[in-house]
Amino acid sequence: MLKVFICGGSGYTGGELLRILAGHRYTEVVGVTSEKSAGKHVNELFPAFFIYKDLKFESLDIEKIKNKADIYFLALPHGKSQEIVFKLLQNNKKIIDLSADFRLKDASQYEAWYKTQHLFPEIIKEAVYGIPELYKEQIKSARLVANPGCYPTSIILPLYPFLKEDIIDPETIVADSKSGASGAGRKVEISLSYCEVNEDFRAYNVAKHRHTPEIEQELSRVAGKPLKIDFITHLLPLNRGILSTIYAKLKKTIKTEEAIEILKRFYENEPFIKILQEGKFPNIKDVKGTNYCFIGAQVNQRTSRLILISTIDNLVKGASGQAVQNMNIIAGFDETEGLQSIALFP
Amino acid sequence: MLKVFICGGSGYTGGELLRILAGHRYTEVVGVTSEKSAGKHVNELFPAFFIYKDLKFESLDIEKIKNKADIYFLALPHGKSQEIVFKLLQNNKKIIDLSADFRLKDASQYEAWYKTQHLFPEIIKEAVYGIPELYKEQIKSARLVANPGCYPTSIILPLYPFLKEDIIDPETIVADSKSGASGAGRKVEISLSYCEVNEDFRAYNVAKHRHTPEIEQELSRVAGKPLKIDFITHLLPLNRGILSTIYAKLKKTIKTEEAIEILKRFYENEPFIKILQEGKFPNIKDVKGTNYCFIGAQVNQRTSRLILISTIDNLVKGASGQAVQNMNIIAGFDETEGLQSIALFP
Amino acid sequence: MLKVFICGGSGYTGGELLRILAGHRYTEVVGVTSEKSAGKHVNELFPAFFIYKDLKFESLDIEKIKNKADIYFLALPHGKSQEIVFKLLQNNKKIIDLSADFRLKDASQYEAWYKTQHLFPEIIKEAVYGIPELYKEQIKSARLVANPGCYPTSIILPLYPFLKEDIIDPETIVADSKSGASGAGRKVEISLSYCEVNEDFRAYNVAKHRHTPEIEQELSRVAGKPLKIDFITHLLPLNRGILSTIYAKLKKTIKTEEAIEILKRFYENEPFIKILQEGKFPNIKDVKGTNYCFIGAQVNQRTSRLILISTIDNLVKGASGQAVQNMNIIAGFDETEGLQSIALFP
Amino acid sequence: MLKVFICGGSGYTGGELLRILAGHRYTEVVGVTSEKSAGKHVNELFPAFFIYKDLKFESLDIEKIKNKADIYFLALPHGKSQEIVFKLLQNNKKIIDLSADFRLKDASQYEAWYKTQHLFPEIIKEAVYGIPELYKEQIKSARLVANPGCYPTSIILPLYPFLKEDIIDPETIVADSKSGASGAGRKVEISLSYCEVNEDFRAYNVAKHRHTPEIEQELSRVAGKPLKIDFITHLLPLNRGILSTIYAKLKKTIKTEEAIEILKRFYENEPFIKILQEGKFPNIKDVKGTNYCFIGAQVNQRTSRLILISTIDNLVKGASGQAVQNMNIIAGFDETEGLQSIALFP
Repeated sequence: MLKVFICGGSGYTGGELLRILAGHRYTEVVGVTSEKSAGKHVNELFPAFFIYKDLKFESLDIEKIKNKADIYFLALPHGKSQEIVFKLLQNNKKIIDLSADFRLKDASQYEAWYKTQHLFPEIIKEAVYGIPELYKEQIKSARLVANPGCYPTSIILPLYPFLKEDIIDPETIVADSKSGASGAGRKVEISLSYCEVNEDFRAYNVAKHRHTPEIEQELSRVAGKPLKIDFITHLLPLNRGILSTIYAKLKKTIKTEEAIEILKRFYENEPFIKILQEGKFPNIKDVKGTNYCFIGAQVNQRTSRLILISTIDNLVKGASGQAVQNMNIIAGFDETEGLQSIALFP
Repeated sequence: MLKVFICGGSGYTGGELLRILAGHRYTEVVGVTSEKSAGKHVNELFPAFFIYKDLKFESLDIEKIKNKADIYFLALPHGKSQEIVFKLLQNNKKIIDLSADFRLKDASQYEAWYKTQHLFPEIIKEAVYGIPELYKEQIKSARLVANPGCYPTSIILPLYPFLKEDIIDPETIVADSKSGASGAGRKVEISLSYCEVNEDFRAYNVAKHRHTPEIEQELSRVAGKPLKIDFITHLLPLNRGILSTIYAKLKKTIKTEEAIEILKRFYENEPFIKILQEGKFPNIKDVKGTNYCFIGAQVNQRTSRLILISTIDNLVKGASGQAVQNMNIIAGFDETEGLQSIALFP
Repeated sequence: MLKVFICGGSGYTGGELLRILAGHRYTEVVGVTSEKSAGKHVNELFPAFFIYKDLKFESLDIEKIKNKADIYFLALPHGKSQEIVFKLLQNNKKIIDLSADFRLKDASQYEAWYKTQHLFPEIIKEAVYGIPELYKEQIKSARLVANPGCYPTSIILPLYPFLKEDIIDPETIVADSKSGASGAGRKVEISLSYCEVNEDFRAYNVAKHRHTPEIEQELSRVAGKPLKIDFITHLLPLNRGILSTIYAKLKKTIKTEEAIEILKRFYENEPFIKILQEGKFPNIKDVKGTNYCFIGAQVNQRTSRLILISTIDNLVKGASGQAVQNMNIIAGFDETEGLQSIALFP
Repeated sequence: MLKVFICGGSGYTGGELLRILAGHRYTEVVGVTSEKSAGKHVNELFPAFFIYKDLKFESLDIEKIKNKADIYFLALPHGKSQEIVFKLLQNNKKIIDLSADFRLKDASQYEAWYKTQHLFPEIIKEAVYGIPELYKEQIKSARLVANPGCYPTSIILPLYPFLKEDIIDPETIVADSKSGASGAGRKVEISLSYCEVNEDFRAYNVAKHRHTPEIEQELSRVAGKPLKIDFITHLLPLNRGILSTIYAKLKKTIKTEEAIEILKRFYENEPFIKILQEGKFPNIKDVKGTNYCFIGAQVNQRTSRLILISTIDNLVKGASGQAVQNMNIIAGFDETEGLQSIALFP
């Protein structure tokens, strides 16, 4: 049994790690931290997770926890992971960091978008950006995985093959994303109260969402040159799920079926990527609670644009599921262990 | 591997059987019928269930299917199961019938409430009413299980111990139940359209819901004399889940903690019944997608009434999950096989 | 133009007063208070109410406001109205208090349920309990109206005629109520966050909701003797609306049509009470945003119980609409002024 | 009193006309048709509209109705308006047609997108495209107003001033629109059932929505040359409202505040257009049930794109409210008569 420790277990992504790991056959959760809920049983905060009878939240004390486990998931607020990562690496532990602290290769970008100083820029170098479909080999031997943001996962996966094959114009990308309310975290804010999200829909962080540099970093890398995108995020009145609608001008004339073929070929061995057939487009319901990413494609011949539509569950493939997928790869387990469940319908 | 066949697989309960059995290690779904969708692949109707790649819906032809499997789930409309049950029993097959056709021991009650003639009253006798927590021994050797209705499951489970111990007055029971929209089935009706259920809440079938006689049958049996209840059903603007609030006058003065103790004692060995501690009451979210029934109790000393609140997922413990639990008991599998998953949060 | 002042205008009931008064032809809102938002324009908090261009929230300073208006609405937290009422009465102003501070005739009941001392028990005597359908004459000349709670309005209105005519047994009343999330007020609480109310349903304050004594006071009065009821409240995943399902044993055998006739006769001149015909029951959608109370009735002959189902919008007939109705009566306006709008569909 | 007749009154737009006209002081609804519900009272279909006590649906018989009213609203399926318009014009009546039949100036476009022959292309010429903010003078004297589609209203209004002032590149427009479920009409379809829209979000009619040519026609006209756009529509899990997020490359460098200034100047005398200040963006809640269009703007300096976000209620400003606004202009009433209500909050 692999010993697993969760730093920051009382939020939605921490809770989702607990839920997923409850169904994982080869891991044991040996500890979980929460500053606010230290001393409480896990099932006081999460009555649905009654199977964790004897697990209590504890305060994060690096000296106490640093020898308890083989692998550490950090589901901490941005900025809080930096030092924990540093100390766990010193202690030779494996880490999957769900925060943004080690995602951006350029520390100045991190500081510009997150308004936080980066204390360990040298560690950034060794961090692997944790989209397993793109970096599986590096993840196998990584000590530190920077688990991607939810929106970036939904945008990078569909666009990657088309930039790689130089089919779209990198200057023309628009990503219009919509996320369920759990994406904001387990926050107490009037704008996230039931009455003010229900029957509403709105854009937020217009043209300044922090996931922008992360998306541009990965897309620029595959495009072979710096690119900038328009990326607008919206809040959906539902709990889980992201749908991204992505637009880009074609550099060559291709048909819809060719676009689909490019996606299928690129992801043919990937268990969590489902490319839909021509005329079908993904919806959020079919991926909710799962680690799958569904992708549909359409060429608009009238405008010479490629339209890509992708869906993921923001808390699973967009966070904790992808984290477990990364752990499976590091530990040498089957990549799908603990992640095979399919969506409830309806 | 146990060979399983599903008659009526295109509705919500049929789909839910497919979903649950996809995670069951010792069964194989060898066939599934649908009159409307005969010829289509399962994943055309249920894109989320893409793992059933090669399974197609077929028309229900008893001669063709009667030797295909070891056990048959019937998720057919009321009235349609009667003859299929008769023929499968002749062929010595095990059957779990999710319709109401064999639930009522008194065929005249069936005919009065369902406005349908019962052609095989003699078969009713051998049918076991499939609440495993009450009839486990009989289910083990049953050829035919009449799988209970969703509302009855949520009402009988909490009340049973109190009637057994003669603590409440059987003449005073009021059950006020609320169900998510999937309880109505995968029907095309304007009153079930999104716009007309969303942001609404309403009672329906007031004082004439067909689940009434089934509840009264089981409660009368344990009370040792005929009783009648008031049972009102309401439609919640959510997909899955039932919450029943149940009221009854106490015959003896007991405290809330004693009421909870009675429940805990009665269900102590039952893996799917969770009795909440004093002051806690169940919500729908914590059981959604699971086979659990959560029960909370409160004595109102001011009025000498016992208040019981229970929640289940109408499609799981209220239908297909309970059916799989019954199958596990019949087949000698662990009772929880395929049913261990806990609820998504949030 | 009647000058109107709102104390406590930044919550949902305060906002609803602003919304309703925006469409009232004979009033002018001359001021509105909010401690947290003092200094802000009304439309900063309520962008939909852009018509209040020049109105700013101010801090509640009784000396500054006591001469500004003819009538004062108090939408303050329980306990906070007491002193304001005292001072405004000294200043000979008319007051409609939306809090519970002056609803209970017995100050010891207030103190027992609200855990707050009552400093002005002598003022309670002159307060009129503001259900206009029951106390219209007293309201006409009242200086202080204690505007009823939302749940009590939905329960007292349907039961009143049957207790008055001695048709039901007062010892057997069960009121099972369900409310939308705005009933909790504009509060910042994790249990009221979108993700934790959406797709959920739960009971709360089981057997100890503070509206209980208010309901019992009014029902006892009409029954002519003290009665106690079971009253359980539940949280619906929708914004606005209450549906109460009410059960009571009949003392005489009556038919459903007679029950409906009793309601129709009692409320025949009341513009806001709609009694539905036999076989029809009210839903929340049809009263949302309106000041109407819809009532349906059913006699269950099998159990000799009367079942009453009522719906109101908790913020309108359950709070601010009823308050404006009371103001109209006091001021001698048409009772329906500003309150004629019908519900959106869908 | 202006006599008004509604052809096609049992759907959501027909119902919305009834709701709005119930609050209009200078009109009387003299008749309403429905083929399916002929003979029924209006309030049988719409219990919330109980004030139409004596109005019954009738079958559409042009001979019977053609002299009954001064102005006719046609809320009929596409294709069904053509002949009714022809006959009413012969009879010298004013018509506001809510279908697409007379929106497209080029009949071949109509036939290509709607797969329906156009029998009266000569009438198209005199039809005025009914966005009052753009065509008020023509509407005043129009006999036939072609009331715009919901999506086009939400897209043309924000883009128009920027194309007029030649600030954006017409080749680069992407409109990503999201609509509530009432936009699909009062249809009985499994894909519009509650369970299958709730907690879901999906794109539909990808790159082939019928509102495309209507948007392109109006934008091309103001741009002074033909343009094509990418326009993708999505289904939101809420009842009412459209939010459109619109992207276009700037031809000149402008700041956000200049973009806002352009909008404010263009719409400064328009009572139903609200331009939000810098940093604010519209949400659906604030326009629900109202005839307002809220618009926010942002220049993304990083990409030189203008981002426009607009919201309307698809049934009001997107259909029946705009139709009444057009009627008010034709009849010489105040443009806002019957349309002054502001949104419920929450």
